[in-house]
Amino acid sequence: MKTASICAIGDEILIGQIVDTNSSHIARALNAIGVRVRGISSIGDARSEIISHLRALLLSSDIVIVTGGLGPTKDDITKEALAALSGAKKTRRSEEQLEVITRILSQRGIEMLPANRAQADVPDTANVIVNNLGTAPIMEFVFKESEFGHKAVLYSMPGVPYETLGALDSVMAAIRGHFALDNILHRTICTFGIAESVLAKMIEKWEDALPDFLHLAYLPNAIYGVRLRLSCYGAEEAGRKEAMDAAVRELYTLLGNNIYGEGADTLQSVIPGLLQAPPQAAYQETIGVAESCTGGLVSNLITSVPGSSAYYKGSVTSYANEVKINLLNVPEEVIEQHGAVSRECAEAMARGAAILLDTDYAVATTGIAGPDGGSEAKPVGTCWIAVAHRNPYSSEEIEVVSRRIDSASASREVNMQRFASNALNLLRLVLQQKLL
Amino acid sequence: MKTASICAIGDEILIGQIVDTNSSHIARALNAIGVRVRGISSIGDARSEIISHLRALLLSSDIVIVTGGLGPTKDDITKEALAALSGAKKTRRSEEQLEVITRILSQRGIEMLPANRAQADVPDTANVIVNNLGTAPIMEFVFKESEFGHKAVLYSMPGVPYETLGALDSVMAAIRGHFALDNILHRTICTFGIAESVLAKMIEKWEDALPDFLHLAYLPNAIYGVRLRLSCYGAEEAGRKEAMDAAVRELYTLLGNNIYGEGADTLQSVIPGLLQAPPQAAYQETIGVAESCTGGLVSNLITSVPGSSAYYKGSVTSYANEVKINLLNVPEEVIEQHGAVSRECAEAMARGAAILLDTDYAVATTGIAGPDGGSEAKPVGTCWIAVAHRNPYSSEEIEVVSRRIDSASASREVNMQRFASNALNLLRLVLQQKLL
Repeated sequence: MKTASICAIGDEILIGQIVDTNSSHIARALNAIGVRVRGISSIGDARSEIISHLRALLLSSDIVIVTGGLGPTKDDITKEALAALSGAKKTRRSEEQLEVITRILSQRGIEMLPANRAQADVPDTANVIVNNLGTAPIMEFVFKESEFGHKAVLYSMPGVPYETLGALDSVMAAIRGHFALDNILHRTICTFGIAESVLAKMIEKWEDALPDFLHLAYLPNAIYGVRLRLSCYGAEEAGRKEAMDAAVRELYTLLGNNIYGEGADTLQSVIPGLLQAPPQAAYQETIGVAESCTGGLVSNLITSVPGSSAYYKGSVTSYANEVKINLLNVPEEVIEQHGAVSRECAEAMARGAAILLDTDYAVATTGIAGPDGGSEAKPVGTCWIAVAHRNPYSSEEIEVVSRRIDSASASREVNMQRFASNALNLLRLVLQQKLL
Repeated sequence: MKTASICAIGDEILIGQIVDTNSSHIARALNAIGVRVRGISSIGDARSEIISHLRALLLSSDIVIVTGGLGPTKDDITKEALAALSGAKKTRRSEEQLEVITRILSQRGIEMLPANRAQADVPDTANVIVNNLGTAPIMEFVFKESEFGHKAVLYSMPGVPYETLGALDSVMAAIRGHFALDNILHRTICTFGIAESVLAKMIEKWEDALPDFLHLAYLPNAIYGVRLRLSCYGAEEAGRKEAMDAAVRELYTLLGNNIYGEGADTLQSVIPGLLQAPPQAAYQETIGVAESCTGGLVSNLITSVPGSSAYYKGSVTSYANEVKINLLNVPEEVIEQHGAVSRECAEAMARGAAILLDTDYAVATTGIAGPDGGSEAKPVGTCWIAVAHRNPYSSEEIEVVSRRIDSASASREVNMQRFASNALNLLRLVLQQKLL
């Protein structure tokens, strides 16, 4: 099995100003193509240390991926270090990358400075993979067996996370071009609403019966639920892919509607597929949102899906009670009697939003994200969520379901995220059950 | 200057399942007490690799901090590796940690198993720092000069982030007890609205004139702007801290209101400090939001600040034009004549939100986040943002400012984030200028 090391360069990581998230994405992508990651490291912006550290990594790994240290300012010296490491004699200009730089700067209305143009210059030992999302090109260095005792490749990627994400597929394809890699197929099943330990018990027998070439991994996430990744090794051999598909079918039987999707699906991305829409249905169903404690997050998650304007009409964030009362038509007595964090308020908000925004469905949240506030009966982490559905042929008829969530995290952010994903999951369940 | 290495142990990091956030917190704490972090690394749960890797780190660093690999399950073998590394003969029980284990398990209603009790057992070469938030004790190993050529200390901390955070102060105090440390001060200046290369030009002379003991680093971010970190080495020496303060004052003069804050400030966290509030002012100023293309993100960012309910009333996400017209009172003719993505529409949305939500200020966004849509005149990445201010003594009087943003990213998410941060920045500028 080919091995890889990942290295993030930047003083900002070593002083704890920035969390290195790139390495995690790169590690996942490498594992997916059958490369084992030996280690992940972060070092500072010091030329000699970069060179000696990368040299050591190239001695022990077939593939080295470096991120960061490619900006136009003078404290970024990765490119120079890579030129020295690879024995470059001079630089050459990547005209393709220069085009991207020119486009990006002109779109942002920024004047092209020599430092910007220099970003298109690479050591003559490098192959360029164009970075379409940023100004620094991705560089590939190929080292012969004579240099490190085995063929080795090194990729230098930008430090900006979305640029690195955007270039991952190209880099993985380039790695596949250099090495004969094992053939691994992955299928990821996304579940919501069951704790990891409970889930493990539910599928224990199924897991024990898996053939050797199928490997299961749990990918738990405190916010988005547990994903199960099934990997099929040697997928080119007869019957293995079919065995994997059969195992997944069994999993669906075992877990029922705790499964909300596969692969990169999210609770928000599966919603459009569950709504009725032409040509099968008479009209496009729509959704709306009323938020309190989630402060816009539910709406933001829904609109993060491209094309969501086809079914999403909008939301009201009613942070102040007067907005709940005046806009969403929550009766003042409901808040007086039950408080703003109550089943009654959540249900009234959902009804109010469906009417105000004129939608088929409406999701509502009202809770206590913390870190301060709350009481013994309703501690920080308590949230009521509700989903309303209007009868399209008699729009005064509205049905509502609601649930209490106890997130119980000390983190305001985590609580808000858990509230929002539970609200989206309730909408998903309502839509799925109606389709059944 | 004493140096440190940080090492996170766990296969889950190497397959990209978990992002190592602990190391960043530890690095920040070490820098704050004047220890230079040489490197951060992640390795897998393999005994021999743990031992050889930690040995190498102890040879090059005075301080090594290890996280992870201390759970009660069998794949966590850090403790055994540390026993071997430190030449332990046997284990001893930490009665203090056992008390914590007993308390935590009983609070969670879990029966004490032998594996749980064993967590209180440490190699006899270890000093224990009690972990009050979890079951695994923090272990300190002190190595004599004869072992690695210099005095070295190693701390083993739990992998659970909030347990590590909770024990950081104790570990830093223990390190201070072992070494006489240098004194480094950091100040981070947060800017928005100037590209890194332009910023570098603006402060070139200032940067060149910095004394040797002041070091500048650029921390660019495509969404939140560029932060400048100034570090002062040997801050205990006469005049250095004053020189740093003087340098920062000059920076304020050079960059003016492109600076929005310092340290961990964000565009949303500085807003409450800019709003008028009692006891200085007659009443608490409030803000509201109207969003289209940002889909709730502006509202979500504002509410991410604890205590925001004191000044934030809520928002309307008007994804559909009918919501813009019916709720925000945007004239239909505005949308017909200028389109929903226009200065006129953004301004009408801001006015409408200020009135509907009854706030002093309102921020509005309307644009094209992509990836599809847009035209030649208004390509993907175009957004109009506006901020409205109502005269508190004559609430029909509303002033509005607006700006066009060209984010020009291919990523829907990045465009939404840039639109939102620009909207918050416009609000910040409006508030700041009024205060001047």
